[in-house]
Amino acid sequence: MTGRYDFASDNTAPAAPEAIAALTAANQGFMASYGEDEVTARAAGLIRALLNADAEVRFVASGTAANSVALAALCRPFEAVLAHGHSHVATDETGAPGFFGHGLGMTALEGASGRIDPQALARALKAPDSAHHQSPAALSLTNATEYGTVYADAALAALTTAARESGLKIHLDGARLANAMAAGCDPRTIAGAGVDILVIGGTKAGMTPAEALVIFDKTLVRRFDARLKQSGQLPSKSRFYAAPFVGMLETGAFVDRAAHANAMARKLAALSPFKVRHPVEANGVFVEMDGAAHKRLLARGWQVYRFLDGSVRFMCSWATTAEAVEQLGADLKAIA
Amino acid sequence: MTGRYDFASDNTAPAAPEAIAALTAANQGFMASYGEDEVTARAAGLIRALLNADAEVRFVASGTAANSVALAALCRPFEAVLAHGHSHVATDETGAPGFFGHGLGMTALEGASGRIDPQALARALKAPDSAHHQSPAALSLTNATEYGTVYADAALAALTTAARESGLKIHLDGARLANAMAAGCDPRTIAGAGVDILVIGGTKAGMTPAEALVIFDKTLVRRFDARLKQSGQLPSKSRFYAAPFVGMLETGAFVDRAAHANAMARKLAALSPFKVRHPVEANGVFVEMDGAAHKRLLARGWQVYRFLDGSVRFMCSWATTAEAVEQLGADLKAIA
Amino acid sequence: MTGRYDFASDNTAPAAPEAIAALTAANQGFMASYGEDEVTARAAGLIRALLNADAEVRFVASGTAANSVALAALCRPFEAVLAHGHSHVATDETGAPGFFGHGLGMTALEGASGRIDPQALARALKAPDSAHHQSPAALSLTNATEYGTVYADAALAALTTAARESGLKIHLDGARLANAMAAGCDPRTIAGAGVDILVIGGTKAGMTPAEALVIFDKTLVRRFDARLKQSGQLPSKSRFYAAPFVGMLETGAFVDRAAHANAMARKLAALSPFKVRHPVEANGVFVEMDGAAHKRLLARGWQVYRFLDGSVRFMCSWATTAEAVEQLGADLKAIA
Amino acid sequence: MTGRYDFASDNTAPAAPEAIAALTAANQGFMASYGEDEVTARAAGLIRALLNADAEVRFVASGTAANSVALAALCRPFEAVLAHGHSHVATDETGAPGFFGHGLGMTALEGASGRIDPQALARALKAPDSAHHQSPAALSLTNATEYGTVYADAALAALTTAARESGLKIHLDGARLANAMAAGCDPRTIAGAGVDILVIGGTKAGMTPAEALVIFDKTLVRRFDARLKQSGQLPSKSRFYAAPFVGMLETGAFVDRAAHANAMARKLAALSPFKVRHPVEANGVFVEMDGAAHKRLLARGWQVYRFLDGSVRFMCSWATTAEAVEQLGADLKAIA
Repeated sequence: MTGRYDFASDNTAPAAPEAIAALTAANQGFMASYGEDEVTARAAGLIRALLNADAEVRFVASGTAANSVALAALCRPFEAVLAHGHSHVATDETGAPGFFGHGLGMTALEGASGRIDPQALARALKAPDSAHHQSPAALSLTNATEYGTVYADAALAALTTAARESGLKIHLDGARLANAMAAGCDPRTIAGAGVDILVIGGTKAGMTPAEALVIFDKTLVRRFDARLKQSGQLPSKSRFYAAPFVGMLETGAFVDRAAHANAMARKLAALSPFKVRHPVEANGVFVEMDGAAHKRLLARGWQVYRFLDGSVRFMCSWATTAEAVEQLGADLKAIA
Repeated sequence: MTGRYDFASDNTAPAAPEAIAALTAANQGFMASYGEDEVTARAAGLIRALLNADAEVRFVASGTAANSVALAALCRPFEAVLAHGHSHVATDETGAPGFFGHGLGMTALEGASGRIDPQALARALKAPDSAHHQSPAALSLTNATEYGTVYADAALAALTTAARESGLKIHLDGARLANAMAAGCDPRTIAGAGVDILVIGGTKAGMTPAEALVIFDKTLVRRFDARLKQSGQLPSKSRFYAAPFVGMLETGAFVDRAAHANAMARKLAALSPFKVRHPVEANGVFVEMDGAAHKRLLARGWQVYRFLDGSVRFMCSWATTAEAVEQLGADLKAIA
Repeated sequence: MTGRYDFASDNTAPAAPEAIAALTAANQGFMASYGEDEVTARAAGLIRALLNADAEVRFVASGTAANSVALAALCRPFEAVLAHGHSHVATDETGAPGFFGHGLGMTALEGASGRIDPQALARALKAPDSAHHQSPAALSLTNATEYGTVYADAALAALTTAARESGLKIHLDGARLANAMAAGCDPRTIAGAGVDILVIGGTKAGMTPAEALVIFDKTLVRRFDARLKQSGQLPSKSRFYAAPFVGMLETGAFVDRAAHANAMARKLAALSPFKVRHPVEANGVFVEMDGAAHKRLLARGWQVYRFLDGSVRFMCSWATTAEAVEQLGADLKAIA
Repeated sequence: MTGRYDFASDNTAPAAPEAIAALTAANQGFMASYGEDEVTARAAGLIRALLNADAEVRFVASGTAANSVALAALCRPFEAVLAHGHSHVATDETGAPGFFGHGLGMTALEGASGRIDPQALARALKAPDSAHHQSPAALSLTNATEYGTVYADAALAALTTAARESGLKIHLDGARLANAMAAGCDPRTIAGAGVDILVIGGTKAGMTPAEALVIFDKTLVRRFDARLKQSGQLPSKSRFYAAPFVGMLETGAFVDRAAHANAMARKLAALSPFKVRHPVEANGVFVEMDGAAHKRLLARGWQVYRFLDGSVRFMCSWATTAEAVEQLGADLKAIA
């Protein structure tokens, strides 16, 4: 437990003041439970405004669960999800989509720096259906990606359009949607791109644990609360998952705090003597660092991890300070 | 969303000051995620002290999920859980045990006022194994029960002993363990009674959403975090689920607040002109009220529900005020 | 393994000559696998003719699996199946619907002698949807029923109509459809009654293991073979599951053999000195027999079981001989 | 459905005379159901003799289900199976292991010609456990492999030993064990190699549909029949799945017929003008053939498929005639 976790992940940070303020403000009086309260209604309205879309919104505790519940709603067990081979749903959730989806399959697509290659998607969509394989029923996208890159709105829409033309449904993992927005992603284009279910991350955006499940496809809404309840994702005290969204959306902190995190990542990349492997468009910096250097860095107390692509990952958050970036930059120079 | 939710459930209450204070205190600096932080370690230690047992402790978001993950750890899909026919796991979680347990069965046992009848358990344990039915692998108990009664320590131990002699594992749903403790239950007897997994409710005890999963049987610990992660119950910002336990256990508020809730229930029962159906030992009051009277009560703004046994349920919480109880008592008299 | 199994079940009988003849006739030359062969096509055509319906037909090995795959196709995990409390899917398949359906629930309906009481169905259909319970998505009927009774075509249609008006899908377990047909059920009314998936039992009708899955609702057909494959129910050598249907349908043995079984049951009922509890309309006889008498019967070598309703069950099959019925009848008189 | 299926698979063949003879011989009189009959007992005894091991044996309908039930018995949902990347369980069963195993993962290992590379296994075994990934709980081997090669007994034991030293359980898919035996595999070494569950293929060995599930690890036996029943794999008329094993094991046809298939494959390989990609040790021949040549071959009526590694596969069976091999050989020359 020792060491500095500033750059270990964007979930090592505390919650931002705006989130805490809203949470404590919501802690007043009795309210209906299971999402029937006014805080939840207000947060849902703010998200609809953000997306400029008439969508159903639910607030849940876990991004892993939110993604998996979404995929289970879009696919049947004998079908598969097309996702980037290094996406969180494919590699970092202990098979949760298969657990929530009763064995649904994941088909890995390639693409540089976490973005799905349109050609890889096209090839997957052309594969003939067979009773002996799990054929795709949904495309899962992540924005910002695992490698700190951001889809241009048009690039994302091109992928969703291709998938929808083949009859697939669309899931968008927005665990770092705030960072994508700070990098230029326009959330009002998501509905138009044909996304069926979007998960908006609150936790990594600087909230206490909270994720928003946004259902654009109204045909999926019937009994969705029963689906959530059975999945352990229908919080009784819903207000505590909704309130941080109220606080950070009403104040603009949702994007502002992410913009800070993105800026810290750019600053760190500029200081890094190690080669930066992926474009720094959001809040992560991935550097090429051999094992010996990594050990030296760990010895200086910086808890950072080697990632799937072999690079070492540094994540910035709303709470990352310029001073910490400079300290880390100096240490990186010292161990390089 | 309108009306008064004071007595609708014990999850309509806000979080107690001790929980909020600890949560905001924990909101400082960077910390390791996924339960490796010091707040989580401290909360786990407090729970071990409470139980006087060397158990593994995890903090999760959902009681439904905690119960279901526990049952899935104790049973295989072709086995069953013995539980009271009106228990929360059997009737109020949308089949979550079957979802997390991949079809595991629930076998309903009878018993007055939510407590399992030892004879009913004995009969179930005597049923021969068959390949054509789901034979029991675990006993699930609830304390305090759904009907606001509390098992005497010896009575609970008698049930667990009988079940263990037949090779069953034991799950204890302690969503309202605080209320049971305030009614005399000694938590230091739970380990000795042979409970394998205990879920301690924080949410209904007056915390922000938080439940503790306590694993007494160490053979279950291997890869339990992977089990939690796959189930969407390994919170990245674990501190926010652990902190409320720190706040309420360190101050004693965990039991003190529950004692208040229990006292409010007794006060309400004393005021009720409607027959109280079950002994008021914890924080719930169940009265015999016909549909017309129930409608009149709803018309006065009191949101309360008819329960499985046909009675109307009033739940008190840490936040219930004597004034509210008196107002409700007066209204009950007016509509009786 | 010793004793006489003539009346233990209708699956203790060998396969009828017509089934064996067709199976050996199909055992010629190479054929496409996984249902693409001509024997399968021919059997499917015969079943469509029998039902006078344009349905998709698949041949599978297991009735338990066929029923469960059907229910999983009609319901989602957080939904429930309405079925008679003593139906095979509810009580005698070790929770298979919950396993194949990932936790889907079973809601028990009452009704005399295995037939669902229309009032019980009406009550279940009126229950309001709730996120905290598994609300019904399908009605499962069994014809002939577990207790050897047969729904009149109009009675069955009344149940399906009521369920469909509430938006439910319909599953018909026809493990003993042959016996029902021999008792007057007209299979050409099944499609019109709105059944979505029908399972026609071959095994109990006197075939080598074989069941037909009949899909009336064409919207369910897409990727159904992938569903079957994933469930272990897409036989490579499909011809061996289709051939017995060819043999028994082409010759008329399917109904003729069942008529014999039904006649044997009536004969046995007439000889029984023990009170017959349910109308003998198909091939089962259920008698009221105390434990001591049951033991005396077992001591004479007759392997028969006590059933869910407390009666002792005698099943007749195509292979039951009049002589065996008379022997059993004499023994029943001797032990009465 | 048209064309010649002789080489499309080894499941396009009819059943061998020895299997049919035993099946019809078993079709006499009433017998206990669900595996309690004497035919099942006899077949189980023959398999124990074959393996020279005191194992539990069950007869089931489906190899896909048998493999998946086995893996579900060896792993928990948040764990993974190590298997060759092109193994049947990994690629050709529509995700059945994940369905029966509630989301259990498959981790692909590499190795030439279908045999797992010991170095690849060693690397996988060295990977540290993590709560964020599905760590391995079982190794799945296939003998003969998907590419018609056969593990030497010592090579297989080296893999199982390495896996067991890391605490893994072992599953052996013997869908083509007969072919492996005909190529020199000694089945009496399987128990000693530490295999926990073995599936012996009857279907591809020339039987009517039948597979044997062999459980060496006695700790897995408790309630295994309930597991099978819930999975739709506890046949009521068990005799029909056991009888073909009786017929083919008692006569020696099990290996003799496989030896013929293997010989036909060698003959075909010798005739092939196309490069044979993998050693022909069992009953499959994989040739390097471009799309145009493949089309010409299909146009001549030979139904053969392109396999995962890009080669075109020809499978021989007990029913493959030397004449057919010669015809195919001539056609291959004509289109080369």
